[in-house]
Amino acid sequence: MKKNAPVRNAFYAQSGGVSAVINASACGVIETALRSKHIGKVYAGRDGIVGALTEDLIDTTRESAATIRGLKHTPAGAFGSARFKLKGLEQNRAEYERLIEVFRAHNIGYFFYNGGNDSMDTALKVSQLGASLGYPVTCVGVPKTVDNDLPHTDCCPGFGSVAKYVAVSTREASLDVASMARTSTKVFVLEVMGRHAGWIAAAAGLAGRGPEETPHIILLPEVPFEQQKFLDRVRQCVTDHGYCVIVVSEGAAWADGRFLADAGTRDAFGHTQLGGVGPVVANMVREAHGYKYHWAVADYLQRAARHIASRVDVEQAYAVGKAAVELAVRGVNAVMPTIVRKSSKPYRWTIGHAPLSEVANKEKKLPPDFIRTDGFGITAKCRRYLEPLIAGESYPPYRNGLPQYARIRGVRVRRKLGDFKV
Amino acid sequence: MKKNAPVRNAFYAQSGGVSAVINASACGVIETALRSKHIGKVYAGRDGIVGALTEDLIDTTRESAATIRGLKHTPAGAFGSARFKLKGLEQNRAEYERLIEVFRAHNIGYFFYNGGNDSMDTALKVSQLGASLGYPVTCVGVPKTVDNDLPHTDCCPGFGSVAKYVAVSTREASLDVASMARTSTKVFVLEVMGRHAGWIAAAAGLAGRGPEETPHIILLPEVPFEQQKFLDRVRQCVTDHGYCVIVVSEGAAWADGRFLADAGTRDAFGHTQLGGVGPVVANMVREAHGYKYHWAVADYLQRAARHIASRVDVEQAYAVGKAAVELAVRGVNAVMPTIVRKSSKPYRWTIGHAPLSEVANKEKKLPPDFIRTDGFGITAKCRRYLEPLIAGESYPPYRNGLPQYARIRGVRVRRKLGDFKV
Repeated sequence: MKKNAPVRNAFYAQSGGVSAVINASACGVIETALRSKHIGKVYAGRDGIVGALTEDLIDTTRESAATIRGLKHTPAGAFGSARFKLKGLEQNRAEYERLIEVFRAHNIGYFFYNGGNDSMDTALKVSQLGASLGYPVTCVGVPKTVDNDLPHTDCCPGFGSVAKYVAVSTREASLDVASMARTSTKVFVLEVMGRHAGWIAAAAGLAGRGPEETPHIILLPEVPFEQQKFLDRVRQCVTDHGYCVIVVSEGAAWADGRFLADAGTRDAFGHTQLGGVGPVVANMVREAHGYKYHWAVADYLQRAARHIASRVDVEQAYAVGKAAVELAVRGVNAVMPTIVRKSSKPYRWTIGHAPLSEVANKEKKLPPDFIRTDGFGITAKCRRYLEPLIAGESYPPYRNGLPQYARIRGVRVRRKLGDFKV
Repeated sequence: MKKNAPVRNAFYAQSGGVSAVINASACGVIETALRSKHIGKVYAGRDGIVGALTEDLIDTTRESAATIRGLKHTPAGAFGSARFKLKGLEQNRAEYERLIEVFRAHNIGYFFYNGGNDSMDTALKVSQLGASLGYPVTCVGVPKTVDNDLPHTDCCPGFGSVAKYVAVSTREASLDVASMARTSTKVFVLEVMGRHAGWIAAAAGLAGRGPEETPHIILLPEVPFEQQKFLDRVRQCVTDHGYCVIVVSEGAAWADGRFLADAGTRDAFGHTQLGGVGPVVANMVREAHGYKYHWAVADYLQRAARHIASRVDVEQAYAVGKAAVELAVRGVNAVMPTIVRKSSKPYRWTIGHAPLSEVANKEKKLPPDFIRTDGFGITAKCRRYLEPLIAGESYPPYRNGLPQYARIRGVRVRRKLGDFKV
């Protein structure tokens, strides 16, 4: 940062599906910005980037220090997030120009965008357009995705906590099934998130110590589903162990790319029945073998489960928020802080950064050497990668038996511009 | 207990659906029996009562003290449970006689049966038959059911932990939905257990502080489902709050008694589609209003979730196990220890007991004054009842990011009898 650079405000926004630790990143951004003499106020977008477009900015200086600190143990998006992808500059120039207009009106010189692949693309475009319009904005992405599919970072904040939730839940439900199998349920199916990459399902593999332990079968999007091979394996498990625990990624698909969840089921009125690959897989097993089964769909429970967050994940989420501000005030533009693994045992990590141009719109899938040769489990290498990410507990405070999560007041910054239709 | 009464062994069995704390009751039984000079060894049935019928008895003295202690923080049924209901004495005399034969062969004078309504009935019949066959057995039930539907006890061990899981998960998922609602999911449905009574669904009501907070709608088995009223309420919630969180009991039913889950859905092959009232309700909302929705089915995850168990529940589960042994050695037969509430604020409880004859085969539903007049929520009275039951955390120990649950060795007692076909 140049000396005597003018103090400018910062804009922070949450984007896409939220996580158990995205607010920890918000906390890292806000607390670090507060200590910087280059940054004035941090304004947060209400409902993410939509808040910038509609000039609905939350003044974070109106929140108490305790509330800001409390974000570190509060799940979901405290300021509101948005599934709202700005298209290319050509199609959507008006929206990008509006962003710059709002930034200019509120003396915003820093843009921290807390999201996944799409958001990194948006942050990059804003930095380019700001420069071309003569209003330079330092744009730094803050990585967040439970899907763990951002490139150039060893892992993504948000993933470790989902991974922990899934591994813990799989271990617990497996004990349940094992204890009932002789006279009751023999097959249990847990459906987890991960539309395109199998990271979350793979994390269930931490529940046991190898192919003899649960989960007996993991169905990954990276491995084309072979029905007969799967059904044979289920029968073998029930024969050998008395029961079978299956974890299936919502993105599990046939060889031709169709999702298993897209089972063509119809309700009584002939309408397409809701997805849910869990029940589809359970039904397959029932029809083939007749075993008594149960299935669970964790859905939002898994990504909101701050009560069982990974301590490493919470620390990394905070650290990338902090690093984003430090990079920005040093004048490093159009980058995203990354997690760099120095060693796995003991686990050591540090913060690096990558250009947004190399991160935007790219997806990192499970590498082949993380997948067992039979396709139904994870390798020792995958386990070494995953294990440190779920390490440590980071319990929120409780009152009356319930976690006390922070709530923001959300005081709005006075508007200076006219309306804009989103 | 009479002085100089002969030392006799005890038989302990787990029955029915397991819970996060049934092993804490096992721990209470075994540790207390170890300290009693009237009880020799505690034998546990492998897979519950099936283990007695097949003379597959686990010698708990072959487990380390650390393992027995570890049961207190280990979910599910460490010795195996069974869904196996002994029918009436008339139809099933051979099985009851076999039980007595096995008890006689192993000098078992105490029978501790850890289960719900059915199990209390079985324990009662065994005590009656033992007496009539000249082999008296002191039979004491140990209450366990996540459904909280046993009469004569203020609450049932197992319930408090499910209640806590459901309340915490509802609070967390609600924050997730709230933060995304502007541009994404507007309706979230969480399906929870409770086939006949709405206790578990009611516990979700603890997540918020009243009708303005989540869950906006609870669907209870005790309240006949009215579709239009429900759909109107959903629309009102989305209009007023921007989103709607619904918790539905698996036992939610139409006025004529049909389960909502029995929706007559068919898969592509015309087969009846699996239940899951969560997706059924979500689909209803979609068809009526077109809102974007998500649904989750917690299934076994909720009752196995020892990682978020209620401390009060763990303590009560241990206490009823301990009390069962204390009652038995005092010669009190055919009873079940109960939880007696002395006050709600502050919460004070003690242990009482009730005759098995008054507990067996009865179900306690949510009383009408626990249900809000609109049928979609709980009253302040219900909240006062529920709140103490989820109080306190009781975290298991962790290693490498995962809870370390106890595993028994399960050494089998040498058999003395011939085979018996179950």
